[in-house]
Amino acid sequence: MEGVLADKLLNKTARIAVIGLGYVGLSILEAFAEAGFPVLGYDCDQEKVDTLREKKSYLSYLSPRSLHAVIEGKNAACSTDPHSLEGIDVFIIAVPTSLDAHRVPDLSHVEDAAKLLSHYLRQDQLVVMQSTSYPGTTEERVLPLLQSEGLKVGKAFYLSFVPEISDIGNPDFSFGKIPKVIGGVTETCGKLTQILYEHVSEHVYLCSSPKIAEAAKILQNAYRLVNISFINEMKIALGRMGIDIWEVIGAASKKPFGFVPFYPGPGIGGDCIPVDPYYLVWKARETDSPTSLIERAGDINAEMPHYILEKIKDALSCDHKALADAKVLVLGVGFKKDVNDLRESAALKILLLLQQAHAKVSYHDPYVPKLIPSGRYPLSMESVVLEYSNLKEYDCTVIVTDHSFYDWDAVLQYSQRIVDTRNVLRKQDTKVIKA
Amino acid sequence: MEGVLADKLLNKTARIAVIGLGYVGLSILEAFAEAGFPVLGYDCDQEKVDTLREKKSYLSYLSPRSLHAVIEGKNAACSTDPHSLEGIDVFIIAVPTSLDAHRVPDLSHVEDAAKLLSHYLRQDQLVVMQSTSYPGTTEERVLPLLQSEGLKVGKAFYLSFVPEISDIGNPDFSFGKIPKVIGGVTETCGKLTQILYEHVSEHVYLCSSPKIAEAAKILQNAYRLVNISFINEMKIALGRMGIDIWEVIGAASKKPFGFVPFYPGPGIGGDCIPVDPYYLVWKARETDSPTSLIERAGDINAEMPHYILEKIKDALSCDHKALADAKVLVLGVGFKKDVNDLRESAALKILLLLQQAHAKVSYHDPYVPKLIPSGRYPLSMESVVLEYSNLKEYDCTVIVTDHSFYDWDAVLQYSQRIVDTRNVLRKQDTKVIKA
Repeated sequence: MEGVLADKLLNKTARIAVIGLGYVGLSILEAFAEAGFPVLGYDCDQEKVDTLREKKSYLSYLSPRSLHAVIEGKNAACSTDPHSLEGIDVFIIAVPTSLDAHRVPDLSHVEDAAKLLSHYLRQDQLVVMQSTSYPGTTEERVLPLLQSEGLKVGKAFYLSFVPEISDIGNPDFSFGKIPKVIGGVTETCGKLTQILYEHVSEHVYLCSSPKIAEAAKILQNAYRLVNISFINEMKIALGRMGIDIWEVIGAASKKPFGFVPFYPGPGIGGDCIPVDPYYLVWKARETDSPTSLIERAGDINAEMPHYILEKIKDALSCDHKALADAKVLVLGVGFKKDVNDLRESAALKILLLLQQAHAKVSYHDPYVPKLIPSGRYPLSMESVVLEYSNLKEYDCTVIVTDHSFYDWDAVLQYSQRIVDTRNVLRKQDTKVIKA
Repeated sequence: MEGVLADKLLNKTARIAVIGLGYVGLSILEAFAEAGFPVLGYDCDQEKVDTLREKKSYLSYLSPRSLHAVIEGKNAACSTDPHSLEGIDVFIIAVPTSLDAHRVPDLSHVEDAAKLLSHYLRQDQLVVMQSTSYPGTTEERVLPLLQSEGLKVGKAFYLSFVPEISDIGNPDFSFGKIPKVIGGVTETCGKLTQILYEHVSEHVYLCSSPKIAEAAKILQNAYRLVNISFINEMKIALGRMGIDIWEVIGAASKKPFGFVPFYPGPGIGGDCIPVDPYYLVWKARETDSPTSLIERAGDINAEMPHYILEKIKDALSCDHKALADAKVLVLGVGFKKDVNDLRESAALKILLLLQQAHAKVSYHDPYVPKLIPSGRYPLSMESVVLEYSNLKEYDCTVIVTDHSFYDWDAVLQYSQRIVDTRNVLRKQDTKVIKA
């Protein structure tokens, strides 16, 4: 590979800007900073940039090492000023994509980023899309916004899609250990992107087009959505037949091939699994393409907080109490263990449903001191101070997120009645209702 | 553990009879014969027993070693005579269970076996159910037939369910390497069964009841049904969007955690994956329990041969030919690679649909010399003699089962047009239609 850009990528003099400083953006920034590239983190959120500059974190799972790379490295900076993007050689788009309340993709951040970049686009630049979206997004939505400036992709500038793959909080798979899948708009786009990512990953894999890479990312998360929803439906079905799903999973897991255990819960949260598959559902409608299993799985997932609410009512009914009169405490609101990320967290829906049912609701989460009202979840609450002996003040304790923080024996000891959505209290105590 | 039966199980003097000499029954027979128990194989099919006595095999994947254990071992015998069951200490039920054309469980063989055993039941006997069925079968269907003789389970005789787990043709997981999951009707039932199976397996796992073990087996196969149907639906959806599912799976598989690749095909066959999950569906209706993902997955699977038919029509249409005038050759009719097992094989449905569409249909399978008409598949055909150069006589070659036997380069070279349901012809040749 020859050329001005290839040389800069090879000798690590290419200036890299990461657009969007969420978890994904920061991971990318850190990786390229550590590899020795001059990096710039760009975000339009002044608060984020200020927090980073103060060496503080806004993510419970962001390591001090990440912060260090961003703030202390002499080759690293962060900014909200678009003019800082002048002179950049590589733009990596890592802005959030989401769904609205009707499960329609919201690509506004991606399109805003593409429009912003188009002002700074020039000869010999590489743009890498890392934001998850439906197959076709890079070529159909991003490329036209970039090409509007008259520069031709594959000749003047280069464009690829590289799906983001990470497992928040899993130390076994650091950024460099996770293979990077690359889909370039042209062959040259792919090859330049390969040179870049080989600096930060042990394995890179070039596929034939961006849409293959886009579809691969969605397939990964659709697989998880389908399987977790399947096990949640099995929980409901077997539960009604008097069979404990957790015991069944334990027995089924003895099969040494062809079976992977998934575990039930209160509903899948996070910005990926419950969201990404619907990009495909939305796109598939253009061609009448069938996505029935994803849709059914998504409906089951959406139903789970309602199912948990039924279990809370059943639990209270054991004590001859009605939900409308009950004091209920929800333990854990992060979408998964030991994170403060509330995106699509089932806990928010459960809190909302409890409020709507006129229960006296409180929550505790060691990582989430307060809930700020947002569009779908108009919740304004503060985490209670947790003293285990005070659990007896509540008619029901609902375990939603199994943070390592909690002393489950104390929860069991002091609670009057418990709804356990995570099977953390394995012991068969009559006060515990598995949900 | 003390007692007459426990002693016999411990010192391998217990006489074991395996009821049903299909693949599962023979594997069990072999394992206990090799462990040193006196064993008897019982089947009501005289032809099977005669074939075994002649040291011939009726299963393409039955090893000569298995046959040896059954026929040559001095402690092994096989019979169709019910009187041979007198004096037996352990009965292992390994008869087939199936679904009728309306997906209703057919447990007649299990019930026949239980009725037969009830005549020979006496003090200090163990009965082990290994035939797959819905959760509750052992206690609700088998136990009443046995107890009818007045002997009490857990006191006089003992009853357990042990799911059959095997991977036909996979040398990595021999009988002894696969953990045995045991669900006893009483604690003593479970423990006696554990003593027995510890002689033939490195790992045994005791669960709390037969229905947990029954549900575990169905969960394992429902997981596979759901996932294979999911990938088949994705094949159709992405295909219509112009995206090759095989490339997408290749890219998605680079994720080193949280993703397991499944592969598309012409529809899932065999006696387990397309069958077992419907036992649960049927049983779940008693309690209005939801099984929507299994049902949707089953419908997708049932649809696959019809989809393949559409692809055959498309392929012929490329050559301006109509199906009703076309000569079509199906390669491979076994339900999976290198086996002669036709149960629920998609090939049978494809052949039938082709016949109904008035195509001139032939098939070839190195392991299946002829097709004998059966209830759902009234097919009376003989495998053609395969000469690759003769493939040009057919308007379309349809690859249904990817037996190792085939020379795919020759298939590609000589066929006029190919529909490939297994992606064996990876190369992008315009004469190949992936289906």
